Amino acid sequence: MEEIINDLLAYDGLKVYQRPDMFNFSLDSLMLGYFARIDFKTKKIIDLCTGNAPVAMYLTLRTDASIDAVEIQKDVYDLADKSIKLNNLAGQIKLYLNDLKGISQVVGKECYDLVTCNPPYFKLNQDSNLNANEYKTIARHEVNTTLEDVLNESKKLLKNRGYLTMVHRPDRLAEILRLLKDYNLNPKTIRFIYPKKDSNANSVIIEAQKNSKEGLKVLEPIIVHENNQYSKIVSDIFNYRKGML
Amino acid sequence: MEEIINDLLAYDGLKVYQRPDMFNFSLDSLMLGYFARIDFKTKKIIDLCTGNAPVAMYLTLRTDASIDAVEIQKDVYDLADKSIKLNNLAGQIKLYLNDLKGISQVVGKECYDLVTCNPPYFKLNQDSNLNANEYKTIARHEVNTTLEDVLNESKKLLKNRGYLTMVHRPDRLAEILRLLKDYNLNPKTIRFIYPKKDSNANSVIIEAQKNSKEGLKVLEPIIVHENNQYSKIVSDIFNYRKGML
Repeated sequence: MEEIINDLLAYDGLKVYQRPDMFNFSLDSLMLGYFARIDFKTKKIIDLCTGNAPVAMYLTLRTDASIDAVEIQKDVYDLADKSIKLNNLAGQIKLYLNDLKGISQVVGKECYDLVTCNPPYFKLNQDSNLNANEYKTIARHEVNTTLEDVLNESKKLLKNRGYLTMVHRPDRLAEILRLLKDYNLNPKTIRFIYPKKDSNANSVIIEAQKNSKEGLKVLEPIIVHENNQYSKIVSDIFNYRKGML
Repeated sequence: MEEIINDLLAYDGLKVYQRPDMFNFSLDSLMLGYFARIDFKTKKIIDLCTGNAPVAMYLTLRTDASIDAVEIQKDVYDLADKSIKLNNLAGQIKLYLNDLKGISQVVGKECYDLVTCNPPYFKLNQDSNLNANEYKTIARHEVNTTLEDVLNESKKLLKNRGYLTMVHRPDRLAEILRLLKDYNLNPKTIRFIYPKKDSNANSVIIEAQKNSKEGLKVLEPIIVHENNQYSKIVSDIFNYRKGML
């Protein structure tokens, strides 16, 4: 299948190999890259369900921390590998062809400051409208990886007080909050993403901290389109360049 | 203590007796009145933690359903009673001086289409900054009534597939969603209230349905102030009159 090279963002210079038959990066990935919890103490990051690695690559604009990135599908991994090399990022991003279940036994336990994840959003059930295309099915539906798998492995990967930043769907909010608690990943902030100011939220970015105290804040609404153009915050995300935040 | 008569809304004509030393109605109560799940099948409503009855009175603008209203504090009950009589609403609103725990044994089990509640928001713990004033303490802190009490009794009061609409604080979201599930009150919609478009949410309105299927929607953001004035939706809430919705 034909490979296309797209810009990741407007001005950052990063390029992403994509294939029309695979899951392509979306605004959700970019928002995860932009909002992931990074500070001066962040030295080790792991991006689960990395796909063609848009989140991992976005994070290189924000931090010099080492970034591990995990993808289960061989052809998708190969594409991510080509993008990482094209952007000369192999020194910062280390890519693993692995199931995320058990990845902590490969990369190390309790050593990450941050886990990021844009996981498959849809539960698998009899009503599942599975994509005929297997690449997209695996990226979008919980065929190989469930939400609980992600949280179980994140808990193993994270240092005490380390952060998980994840993007997901609002219709699974109750389950997400319940499972986070079950895995001692305490939800600290939630941002809801509304396509327009009069739309229902279609995405949610959740930040949880391992073994922390309770205390959840619902942060300002992220409204994607205002007055028929991208809002200030979404423009900032698209126009992000190294050293800006 | 001096009693004051305030307007409930801008044009509806309803008056509310208030006392400076008691908990006074807030925008949260008005939003609960406006957003409570009412349709043509709604025949019986009960408002828990009714205080000086702003929610019950707001609901009379939207429906001819019978409304029971429950208040535990005698002096607050007396004030609500005076307001209800002043507005000639004693035919529609029946007021009970009762603990909500066990109220279903007084008013009837599984017979309500809708429960509304603006409960005490704050957990009681050693750090609680309790109001020196007992009226306000009981209205704001879980002294007499906990979230779990509200949900336990709501479940008993509601018909199968009946609705609970409740206003609460976003920092308790995880607990609210977990307890709703424990009581088979399935969260259907959530609205977050943001004071301004760049503020954290400070309130949340949750609608749950007894014994229903899962399927949560996060509805459009409610932003209270825009361009230094009340937003359209909040103006609509303040300017509500009978027959408008």
